[in-house]
Amino acid sequence: MPNPEGGADRVAHWSPRRLREAFRQGELNRPTSGLAMGYTQANLVVLPQDLAFDFLLFCQRNPKPCPVIEVVEAGGADPRLTAPGADLRTDLPRYRVFRDGQLTAEVSDITSHWRADFVSFLLGCSFTFEAALLQAGIELRHTREGKNVAMYKTNVACTPAGVFHGPLVVSMRPIPAGQVSEAVEVSGAYPAVHGAPVHVGEPAAIGIHDLSRPDYGDAVEIAPGELPVFWACGVTPQAVALASRPSIMITHAPGYMFITDQRDEAYRV
Amino acid sequence: MPNPEGGADRVAHWSPRRLREAFRQGELNRPTSGLAMGYTQANLVVLPQDLAFDFLLFCQRNPKPCPVIEVVEAGGADPRLTAPGADLRTDLPRYRVFRDGQLTAEVSDITSHWRADFVSFLLGCSFTFEAALLQAGIELRHTREGKNVAMYKTNVACTPAGVFHGPLVVSMRPIPAGQVSEAVEVSGAYPAVHGAPVHVGEPAAIGIHDLSRPDYGDAVEIAPGELPVFWACGVTPQAVALASRPSIMITHAPGYMFITDQRDEAYRV
Repeated sequence: MPNPEGGADRVAHWSPRRLREAFRQGELNRPTSGLAMGYTQANLVVLPQDLAFDFLLFCQRNPKPCPVIEVVEAGGADPRLTAPGADLRTDLPRYRVFRDGQLTAEVSDITSHWRADFVSFLLGCSFTFEAALLQAGIELRHTREGKNVAMYKTNVACTPAGVFHGPLVVSMRPIPAGQVSEAVEVSGAYPAVHGAPVHVGEPAAIGIHDLSRPDYGDAVEIAPGELPVFWACGVTPQAVALASRPSIMITHAPGYMFITDQRDEAYRV
Repeated sequence: MPNPEGGADRVAHWSPRRLREAFRQGELNRPTSGLAMGYTQANLVVLPQDLAFDFLLFCQRNPKPCPVIEVVEAGGADPRLTAPGADLRTDLPRYRVFRDGQLTAEVSDITSHWRADFVSFLLGCSFTFEAALLQAGIELRHTREGKNVAMYKTNVACTPAGVFHGPLVVSMRPIPAGQVSEAVEVSGAYPAVHGAPVHVGEPAAIGIHDLSRPDYGDAVEIAPGELPVFWACGVTPQAVALASRPSIMITHAPGYMFITDQRDEAYRV
């Protein structure tokens, strides 16, 4: 991924805490891919308390696309379990603010938007199992091509909960036929961060008719002898929450994740 | 376990659906241990909507003692995911009604107590991994002695959530030293129903000072060469919920569980 700051080396070995401080102070503002390697990064979804039960239940019923890492109750912004001392209002590099289902602002600090009744959800992110795939010698095509991973809406419905319902969104990575089994086993060891693929090959069977036109992210090449392999994607809960047009909802900006103090191994079974 | 109906054979091979109908009609009223073998049984906790988020979050933060099998939202009593067509108000053999933290009734039908704002939680039960232990050739002492399993409050605090906080409650089963490892592996394969033990040997280390005096259930013999092995217990969420003195809370009566249509294997990783 291109680094707008130039020279990843300067910050590549910073600790999660140091990085969060730099984001908080405005010293650094860049996507978090490749930073604090070995530490788990998370998707952020902030919703008012009156939607919190429905959203937590939606996550409980759909653990593959919506793996809950931590929930911070109303009144707090401190993820004590995964990053003690952090502040979710300032410690991500970029946020998106949605009102009535519409993107209204992209900011680097949400303190001025914060309300006492906000509940914050941290959800697992594919970076965790991607690191494991790389360690197992499985290439990540989108990384090699310098792109975002390709993501697609499927015709598979999530299990609804309260006001929340919608389709499963998947990410796709091309995997050589001889490595598919290993890719399943390696990612399956991380059930708390999307886990094993939900589908292998045959995109039409889950309602994907043109791999060259992803709904989110960028298309990547699929070489002869490779199969498209589909994982449940963390875009799902955001897309579903947004579809219900909450009066206000705040998320991280795509690629600008929250960096926790948890080692990836903590999510390995 | 003694069977108050006499002759377990008559109902031992009934399906979950047939058993639920018999409980609903008042045709049968007995503990569910040993019934519908191979099908998952569940603990029931019913709370008003205004406590539902805190309770679901408590379960999310304490998955070993509080493994959520299904949540039925306010307005319904039909566990569509695990027992379609069942009715949680009538299909358990016995219930307990608590008001302001006090037991006020033990009944076989809660239709007259039901409110539109009730949310029902089905939580995993140790029967599931006990069946797996038996199949692995590991004796269950309490079953051989015709008793309830021994349960103890520990000095290990659960992770609090909202109004809910309290100690972890564990069940104890004596296991021969040579089978401890197997007992860990076999039960660990069922993380959705309490999973692997939380502690092996050394009860004092978790605040248990007299194994002969359990807080719930019955004491059992520990033979020479056996270790006390402790599993997170489904009594925990009930004890914790009750300690917050909710205006009303309904549970199953101990041993009188909800029988789902799910096979135990569905909860095996």
